[in-house]
Amino acid sequence: MQLLGIDPGCRYAGYGVIRTEGSMIYLVEHGLLKLSPTQSLVQRVAAFHDFFSEKITIHKVTDIALETPFLGKNAQNFLKLGYLRGIVYLLSHKHAITLHEFSPTEVKQALTGYGSASKEQVARVLYQLFPRIPPFEREDVSDALAVTLCGLWRGNQNRLIGLR
Amino acid sequence: MQLLGIDPGCRYAGYGVIRTEGSMIYLVEHGLLKLSPTQSLVQRVAAFHDFFSEKITIHKVTDIALETPFLGKNAQNFLKLGYLRGIVYLLSHKHAITLHEFSPTEVKQALTGYGSASKEQVARVLYQLFPRIPPFEREDVSDALAVTLCGLWRGNQNRLIGLR
Repeated sequence: MQLLGIDPGCRYAGYGVIRTEGSMIYLVEHGLLKLSPTQSLVQRVAAFHDFFSEKITIHKVTDIALETPFLGKNAQNFLKLGYLRGIVYLLSHKHAITLHEFSPTEVKQALTGYGSASKEQVARVLYQLFPRIPPFEREDVSDALAVTLCGLWRGNQNRLIGLR
Repeated sequence: MQLLGIDPGCRYAGYGVIRTEGSMIYLVEHGLLKLSPTQSLVQRVAAFHDFFSEKITIHKVTDIALETPFLGKNAQNFLKLGYLRGIVYLLSHKHAITLHEFSPTEVKQALTGYGSASKEQVARVLYQLFPRIPPFEREDVSDALAVTLCGLWRGNQNRLIGLR
């Protein structure tokens, strides 16, 4: 299983790639795609597509995990998030990848055992699991890693318990 | 100029293709892409992509016109509309197509001269311009043709006045 988790955004998109081998899990890669606000939305949507298309190919991704978005204060930002999610849907079809979606509560529940956990609690679990990673550049990265792990956990509960 | 107008939807997507040659405009094609509700959203997003990718190639589309969406009662439908719009953005980048967006008021203004015109008034203008077309199967088709014409009108006002 080679799982890609994405926290999409038109300015910053966090991502993580996790691989399982037997009872072990490996953090293959994690990072931040920065999309320039000076670029048009058309250019950014295309850059997002090309970036993740490449990651999927390089890492032979079998599963993608996304968090269900909720409508915030800004309807236009919500719509733009839809643009990027549409791209993820397209990529998952083109590469025959299983798409998993989790609510924010499910992600927090999976990571901390508590659906109303704070961002800090979630980050603490991530640092415990992967002690060698440096502090996350932005929350988008830890959010992406959290949803990646949630995808693994939910699809593969016993193995992850084995790891811990 | 070969203009494609799309009224995206996860169940029905209306579209129209209009070509200009000198002072003439031709309605090349118009219709409805039906997406089965029994298919997953991933399949429908991919079907939408493939359908319009083919139309763009076949008709050598140079411009795409879309209407700006507004948040209605259903936030999830609004988000799904974003998925399809993201695909249109991607296609316009991949095929180096100019993307035009108009508010519903701009479309009605362009077609009828009145920004608060009814759907019936807009349809009447379409039937006047293209008297040989049969009644529209659904509003999605007339909406798509309206935004296509708006794209032509706004980019190419004199020619369209010449036609009328």
